[in-house]
Amino acid sequence: MPEKPFSLAASALIRDGAGRVLLLKRAADDPINPGKWDLPGGTLDPGETFDRALRREAREETGMLVTLRHVAGAGDLDLPMKRIVYLVMACDADRTGVSLSPEHEDYTWAVPGEAAAMDLAEQFRGLFEGGG
Amino acid sequence: MPEKPFSLAASALIRDGAGRVLLLKRAADDPINPGKWDLPGGTLDPGETFDRALRREAREETGMLVTLRHVAGAGDLDLPMKRIVYLVMACDADRTGVSLSPEHEDYTWAVPGEAAAMDLAEQFRGLFEGGG
Repeated sequence: MPEKPFSLAASALIRDGAGRVLLLKRAADDPINPGKWDLPGGTLDPGETFDRALRREAREETGMLVTLRHVAGAGDLDLPMKRIVYLVMACDADRTGVSLSPEHEDYTWAVPGEAAAMDLAEQFRGLFEGGG
Repeated sequence: MPEKPFSLAASALIRDGAGRVLLLKRAADDPINPGKWDLPGGTLDPGETFDRALRREAREETGMLVTLRHVAGAGDLDLPMKRIVYLVMACDADRTGVSLSPEHEDYTWAVPGEAAAMDLAEQFRGLFEGGG
């Protein structure tokens, strides 16, 4: 059996000035993780670098211009036809107002302890364990 | 001041069948992390995917053919001219014999608790904390 292909996604852990991070709620009709709380981000286009992809996806999904600061973690998701690896970068943004795309239906700012108790997309559940 | 550019590196946490992982000792004259214990891997070539880069680097640095299994973690390194983000994948290999490249001068197989006590390259120190 051939190996399932990998895709790489870049995800943004966007912090405000008060220790909270931005979570987006996926649309109820999304084929992947419907209704789960998610981070802004997405898979790289062919030949695209992860940092460029992350700035693009954050802009598309939140309206924000983000600055990548450091690695926050990584996760993965095993789907029927492929595996997606998520590289999560802590980011600062140029604003706190959020403009959602059709991919998400709600958003919230949460401290890590609150985020850990939310119904998170599977690939991000490890990020907030230990209240970190 | 313009932002320092990012590079992405893929690193392999290669396991044997006995719970040990492969560590490589960087050459003493390497400009980055000389003499530190390292994981096989390296930065992506332009347009190269992370999984292909990881198989290529593992082959070059250990002689092994590796199969990527799941995300093991991530780290980063802030250098004077650039920042490198390391995506670490747990891998299995087709052999346990190791053929080093000139980039490394020694290797060892260590259980995670042993690895945590070694003089690791900075970007991998978080991987073995908690004996994980």
